[in-house]
Amino acid sequence: MHEECGVFGIWTQDRRKIAWKVYSGLYALQHRGQESCGIAVSCDGVFRHQKENGLVGEVFDSRRLEQLGEGNIAVGHVRYSTTGGKSHSNIQPIVIRHMKGNLALCHNGNLVNAGALRMQHELNGGIYHGTTDTETIIYTIVSERLRTASTEEAVHRAMIKLQGAYSCVLMTATKLIAFRDPCGFRPLCWGQTPAGDCVVASESCALDAVGAALIRDIEPGEILVIGEEGVISDRRLCGNAPSLCVFEYIYFARPDSVIEGAPVHLTRLRAGRFLAGEDPVDADVVVGVPDSGIDAALGYAQESGIPYGVGFLKNKYIGRSFIAPSQELRETAVRIKLNVIRDSVAGKRVVLIDDSIVRGTTSGRIVRLLREAGAKEVHMRISSPPFRHPCYFGTDVDSRENLIACRLPSADAIAEEIGADSLAFLSVQAAHRLTGEACSFCDGCFSGRYPIPIPEDQGKSKFEQPLPTAYKKQHISCH
Amino acid sequence: MHEECGVFGIWTQDRRKIAWKVYSGLYALQHRGQESCGIAVSCDGVFRHQKENGLVGEVFDSRRLEQLGEGNIAVGHVRYSTTGGKSHSNIQPIVIRHMKGNLALCHNGNLVNAGALRMQHELNGGIYHGTTDTETIIYTIVSERLRTASTEEAVHRAMIKLQGAYSCVLMTATKLIAFRDPCGFRPLCWGQTPAGDCVVASESCALDAVGAALIRDIEPGEILVIGEEGVISDRRLCGNAPSLCVFEYIYFARPDSVIEGAPVHLTRLRAGRFLAGEDPVDADVVVGVPDSGIDAALGYAQESGIPYGVGFLKNKYIGRSFIAPSQELRETAVRIKLNVIRDSVAGKRVVLIDDSIVRGTTSGRIVRLLREAGAKEVHMRISSPPFRHPCYFGTDVDSRENLIACRLPSADAIAEEIGADSLAFLSVQAAHRLTGEACSFCDGCFSGRYPIPIPEDQGKSKFEQPLPTAYKKQHISCH
Amino acid sequence: MHEECGVFGIWTQDRRKIAWKVYSGLYALQHRGQESCGIAVSCDGVFRHQKENGLVGEVFDSRRLEQLGEGNIAVGHVRYSTTGGKSHSNIQPIVIRHMKGNLALCHNGNLVNAGALRMQHELNGGIYHGTTDTETIIYTIVSERLRTASTEEAVHRAMIKLQGAYSCVLMTATKLIAFRDPCGFRPLCWGQTPAGDCVVASESCALDAVGAALIRDIEPGEILVIGEEGVISDRRLCGNAPSLCVFEYIYFARPDSVIEGAPVHLTRLRAGRFLAGEDPVDADVVVGVPDSGIDAALGYAQESGIPYGVGFLKNKYIGRSFIAPSQELRETAVRIKLNVIRDSVAGKRVVLIDDSIVRGTTSGRIVRLLREAGAKEVHMRISSPPFRHPCYFGTDVDSRENLIACRLPSADAIAEEIGADSLAFLSVQAAHRLTGEACSFCDGCFSGRYPIPIPEDQGKSKFEQPLPTAYKKQHISCH
Amino acid sequence: MHEECGVFGIWTQDRRKIAWKVYSGLYALQHRGQESCGIAVSCDGVFRHQKENGLVGEVFDSRRLEQLGEGNIAVGHVRYSTTGGKSHSNIQPIVIRHMKGNLALCHNGNLVNAGALRMQHELNGGIYHGTTDTETIIYTIVSERLRTASTEEAVHRAMIKLQGAYSCVLMTATKLIAFRDPCGFRPLCWGQTPAGDCVVASESCALDAVGAALIRDIEPGEILVIGEEGVISDRRLCGNAPSLCVFEYIYFARPDSVIEGAPVHLTRLRAGRFLAGEDPVDADVVVGVPDSGIDAALGYAQESGIPYGVGFLKNKYIGRSFIAPSQELRETAVRIKLNVIRDSVAGKRVVLIDDSIVRGTTSGRIVRLLREAGAKEVHMRISSPPFRHPCYFGTDVDSRENLIACRLPSADAIAEEIGADSLAFLSVQAAHRLTGEACSFCDGCFSGRYPIPIPEDQGKSKFEQPLPTAYKKQHISCH
Repeated sequence: MHEECGVFGIWTQDRRKIAWKVYSGLYALQHRGQESCGIAVSCDGVFRHQKENGLVGEVFDSRRLEQLGEGNIAVGHVRYSTTGGKSHSNIQPIVIRHMKGNLALCHNGNLVNAGALRMQHELNGGIYHGTTDTETIIYTIVSERLRTASTEEAVHRAMIKLQGAYSCVLMTATKLIAFRDPCGFRPLCWGQTPAGDCVVASESCALDAVGAALIRDIEPGEILVIGEEGVISDRRLCGNAPSLCVFEYIYFARPDSVIEGAPVHLTRLRAGRFLAGEDPVDADVVVGVPDSGIDAALGYAQESGIPYGVGFLKNKYIGRSFIAPSQELRETAVRIKLNVIRDSVAGKRVVLIDDSIVRGTTSGRIVRLLREAGAKEVHMRISSPPFRHPCYFGTDVDSRENLIACRLPSADAIAEEIGADSLAFLSVQAAHRLTGEACSFCDGCFSGRYPIPIPEDQGKSKFEQPLPTAYKKQHISCH
Repeated sequence: MHEECGVFGIWTQDRRKIAWKVYSGLYALQHRGQESCGIAVSCDGVFRHQKENGLVGEVFDSRRLEQLGEGNIAVGHVRYSTTGGKSHSNIQPIVIRHMKGNLALCHNGNLVNAGALRMQHELNGGIYHGTTDTETIIYTIVSERLRTASTEEAVHRAMIKLQGAYSCVLMTATKLIAFRDPCGFRPLCWGQTPAGDCVVASESCALDAVGAALIRDIEPGEILVIGEEGVISDRRLCGNAPSLCVFEYIYFARPDSVIEGAPVHLTRLRAGRFLAGEDPVDADVVVGVPDSGIDAALGYAQESGIPYGVGFLKNKYIGRSFIAPSQELRETAVRIKLNVIRDSVAGKRVVLIDDSIVRGTTSGRIVRLLREAGAKEVHMRISSPPFRHPCYFGTDVDSRENLIACRLPSADAIAEEIGADSLAFLSVQAAHRLTGEACSFCDGCFSGRYPIPIPEDQGKSKFEQPLPTAYKKQHISCH
Repeated sequence: MHEECGVFGIWTQDRRKIAWKVYSGLYALQHRGQESCGIAVSCDGVFRHQKENGLVGEVFDSRRLEQLGEGNIAVGHVRYSTTGGKSHSNIQPIVIRHMKGNLALCHNGNLVNAGALRMQHELNGGIYHGTTDTETIIYTIVSERLRTASTEEAVHRAMIKLQGAYSCVLMTATKLIAFRDPCGFRPLCWGQTPAGDCVVASESCALDAVGAALIRDIEPGEILVIGEEGVISDRRLCGNAPSLCVFEYIYFARPDSVIEGAPVHLTRLRAGRFLAGEDPVDADVVVGVPDSGIDAALGYAQESGIPYGVGFLKNKYIGRSFIAPSQELRETAVRIKLNVIRDSVAGKRVVLIDDSIVRGTTSGRIVRLLREAGAKEVHMRISSPPFRHPCYFGTDVDSRENLIACRLPSADAIAEEIGADSLAFLSVQAAHRLTGEACSFCDGCFSGRYPIPIPEDQGKSKFEQPLPTAYKKQHISCH
Repeated sequence: MHEECGVFGIWTQDRRKIAWKVYSGLYALQHRGQESCGIAVSCDGVFRHQKENGLVGEVFDSRRLEQLGEGNIAVGHVRYSTTGGKSHSNIQPIVIRHMKGNLALCHNGNLVNAGALRMQHELNGGIYHGTTDTETIIYTIVSERLRTASTEEAVHRAMIKLQGAYSCVLMTATKLIAFRDPCGFRPLCWGQTPAGDCVVASESCALDAVGAALIRDIEPGEILVIGEEGVISDRRLCGNAPSLCVFEYIYFARPDSVIEGAPVHLTRLRAGRFLAGEDPVDADVVVGVPDSGIDAALGYAQESGIPYGVGFLKNKYIGRSFIAPSQELRETAVRIKLNVIRDSVAGKRVVLIDDSIVRGTTSGRIVRLLREAGAKEVHMRISSPPFRHPCYFGTDVDSRENLIACRLPSADAIAEEIGADSLAFLSVQAAHRLTGEACSFCDGCFSGRYPIPIPEDQGKSKFEQPLPTAYKKQHISCH
């Protein structure tokens, strides 16, 4: 499971080496996308940008940051992409030149009517360099811009046409514009530094990283325009029931972020508490799978009274450069990444908390590791409901036939396959109470009910992926 | 002085690892552009491409070539760019996705009406990622494509709108299309391998590199369509007086290439012979500045009867990674690149042949080296006429105030500045006879008379570079 | 504070791509040294090796591992070095060629008589390429080898001359020899895989990584010879009181390792429990500084009954490539690396557990972060005694004037400087009971009493670093 | 055929960023070794060094040169190595630490008694990191140094023990010492800059590169000591008949260098003239194989009266990164590297000059290229005698069974195999007159007669390569 992006934008009153701030912000958002990243800086309307495949720390060194020069507005992006999309053309920000003004756009989310919009732009003479929805968003804005007096008004008109999930920051020569789709699928917030710099980011942890205080979330449907005239909010498209992706709390967001007023760490403790209430078990120790199962394990321990233990050591040096050893050693590879702290579990009945089960393979291996280390019983508890339906709003899920919750009829069947003594998932109802009060989330991946209608071909394409005829035989890929 | 590009395209009857062929072709064209390069491959309409800043040997290793996979059509490009243009968005081939069919375009040349066309496309909703004319050419083709039945017909209509220099290869899902502007400013030729593969390239040396025999030049104004139906020529726009850039013979092209039937090496020998006829001098040895002055020096020696000598050793390891030492050592740096073979010149009256003088600084240093090595007299002969006017067709020239032939009133004045005992340039008339017969070249940079009218703002921009108002404050640069 | 090395060795019965096993083992030992690493493989006595500055994942890719080829014995090393020592000559394994047989040596520790031995070898005609003790150890072994019948006997005789800390693995053409100094300052253990491969490593977590079961620690003073004849132990130099570095438990070793029978994780929980007993405080939550304060915080919470909380989010993408932003942003840099989970501490009295205080600067910043996040009180507890004396056995400590426990007279004074409401350290007595039973550790850095006499100049050199006269003006450094 | 090294040393009166000078010098010597390079700098006795596999321009960038800091003495080296020797341990300068003073040694040549000396040092307790003779030379010097009052006296005593070819520069804390074996197999010269800096180099072209004037060659057997006391020459071991490698003139040295008073370029012209005298042929054009056949071709043309022509274009971008295309394209690969200038040879009888034939494969391909380009006849002339015997003094030759002059009985047989109409080699007598006067060269590779006796096992090892028993099964290789 992968989130597809993190966005960041900053507006300052005076020119400075602003790229360093974006660099710090992107480091804080790195968990939202590890495939590529980029920064664009505006210095009095002259745009400079740098983007590349790689982690923030790999792509940006002092030299590159210095090349971005001084400026007073900047945007940045971290990206995870699905297959075929590693093309340089797809790396964000998408920076374009236009007589009406240069633009740099960063986008987190997924449109459901991208195909139709794209065909429309192409029939109008437009050409596409990449395959991202981001190019479609910018085409839509630019074509509206030709008929309106300002970029922000063009954004408003474009939002009426765009359907799906989009949390965006857009840089013009003079303004930083943040906008979020009317359902608010993906988070977006803003804040201010003591010096008066305005910062927009996918998560509040990125505000912390640059010393900005969180003011509030950008509302679903809101356009926030930051410029010389101050901060102006356009709420004409607000008012929808919010539909934040519940997985932002359970898995994607960083525990130190606060989304819609709820501290993410707290929602995870609560998930563990709910699990303990819904699915109690008699045991000697509660351990979590690092990193994301730790919080829920602590919550489970607090609620159940069973002692909390540290069950695993996760090797923090294993990164993308780690080469999984040859076939025969594949099983060992798990041990290199995750080693059991034997003393915590040997001879004990263990409650094992993880945030999700996708294929079940990894869970099976972890259960096996615990047993080899001497655990007498292993009771697995998952701090999210079972994942059974595709997501159309920016989460990359495995195909249905690989999802263990689609393949197998019951939690017991899954428990058997992965070798656990028992298994339970968080209930969908409990998921809706994660923030402490009943809340309106998008739970489409659990329930199959989505907040907005999914166009038919789109519906199919998520699992079967046929392209509209016009695009057949045209796939372009590159490094 | 810099040429701005080399193009290459290949069409084969069956699928294979075709990128390797383009790789060989680009190596042969590397002298036409050392800044960036790229290859695009079509495999049954699926396009893959790789492009990056760097030399062919730096950008392409086995892994990258393998990633391009198999295919039956491919195009490649090497590029030199002027300032501000190092952006990844400007590297060619430009590969675009469109419902009417994907396209990959490689271009050598320079449009004179790019600004006007660009404004038109942008007013129509088009967006630009880079600053190259290539994007304008592809926009023009795509917008015509929406109104025509085939890509080749769209190319024809686009050519009516494009003004300036363009030698292009265009890859579609099924065809390789080569086209050249009606003046034929830049070279473009095609050939065939014994196995029947069709190859298009800027110069015939690239055909040699892949084992293809030169068939002929693409004519000025011609469109050549290579596909399943064979090779089809569209000559509707042919018939203009040809205006090949005479500097292709004097400087840009490789001596082993044959352009418009004339072997480049031979034209350079002839330049030397003409020089000897026009500006004889009593001397003991004729030496050429490597690499490009060598051929003319040999011609001068043959015509004059003065012995030919090897005057310099050029360090072949000095490349882009060479770091010019600190200020005080700058003078020494010339010696590291170019060392005099003392024995060839000591105590002698030397005729020194070079292909051009731009600022005069380098020539001055070389004359000084010869004198330090004991040359009694140094008579400089330049195998081209003095360079006094801007080029609008793809050659990057220094600004007028730096050109020594603009700054100083006469050859004698230049001779004095660079410390030579005498100096003479090739006459413009002689330049027109380089191929052996009177020929219609573009000699705008010598005469200031251009084969096609230059739009007014364009005229200024070459030296003073004001941008149309709409583009003010919009410069975008990146790595 | 830095450990200086991790060693690994493996012996298998049949030839295979053994370097991959070492690669896995070094990944598990990476925490013991992040500066450089290396692997040497013996294939029937032909040695191949690769070593370089960088992390295991940076230095070794598939190509390099494949170049190491097949073999049946291999050793590996990860290294942290003090200043001046980044020279390639210092990277281990040190591989040497000698008529009596090639050798590859990996060493963890520090000799106290290296200077005297070195002078002796040099007076005998020996030359040094680097500055490590490892070269001295190998010289000592080789010079004994000329007078003995076997390498293992040469090792025995060398050990009589070597004084200080050394846990070593030595590869010969036919044997893997592990040996540990008679005090056993640094850990070293061995185990076996189900297939019968023998593995030696600094810590048992590296045995886990290659699927080997821990058999036992190599005893202080023991030589273990692994070869065709099986595993032979030479205990002639055993019998000393063991003097393991207590910081191995507190800080260096991985919590999932077991040293001298004690699980490291458990000793850290115990340190927290002891702290709670020795220095109780009335508070609302116990939080640990990640990563190494976490275990002790949990122990403190268990013993005190105060709830355990997750106080911080450590950015796991911050690595060596992270560039600390400009001066003005230095303070912010802490926030990028470590962000407070506000909800866990706001409005609470916090017990903050860390494993050590060196200069106090970092502790001061962390206390400040907690207060900014709304902590009402901050009581700091350190799970080790105060660090006041130099270490001569392989731990790189700051200079005395920088150590806060040397600079300030009392815990209260330190508390004041770092802004904590109270501060307490673990007592030295408690440190001696970390493994559950009274144990004989080296606690020289706390007490100033060392298990073996420290040569006088050595004693000074640790803080004042004068070199023996003969070495004056001879410092050599390189990349 | 490969030369194995180039050495460079510089001594200045005051401290400065001296590494930049060595960088320039090594660029000028790059043709003598392209595998690895290194620089060592002494700043008041503190040595810093950097060395790595790669070309000078790859290994040294500004950052690395700056890291070498200031200094007043420096040495540098470029290296080509034979198989197995790419180990980092073999890269020069070899920098060692010793109580008697640090040393950095650069060596060009090959000892014939290295095995015996090595065994002696090892029996004395010495250890070897690499496989070069350089380590043996430094061991020999260091062991003498323990018994003498100065390094220069130690060098003198060491030279009495060393047998074979060695042109060396040695840096101590206060002196630069250059010494050359009594036969003077490899060149070594010194000069001075106008500012009084003293420079030592393998060839005078490196003096030119740093603005130093050639004073004279270091004499065979001479020790030159450059230091505070000035330049002191020790000629105690001079007086032998000189035995410079004749291939230095024919192939290795740069044409702009002057060796033993003879300009290299001139000796190559002379080789061409001699060839024309010894083996005249009726033809229309003389062409040389670039780069090293060009000079001799010009000499042949001058002597014979047959016009000189430019027959080939050598692709100057083909470097080590060029990937020879797949098997089927191997033949084409020649064309990418070397293209015939058709016009120069079509329909003509061609004299083709090259400097040597080793296996014959390349010569065969070049002849084929000429014929394909329309040459009517191809008469090959080689500007060196046939290569039939091993070299023990620093030239890496192919094994006997691969040498075409060993395989085939006569020039005619070789001509037939390579497809030439005729073939002739320079006579050995002519080779001895290359400098204009009868001169005493080492012509062992032509005649099999060597200036000094070759130890028996050494003799065999050059072709059959058995190692002394003590070294069996001990080969160590690394990156």
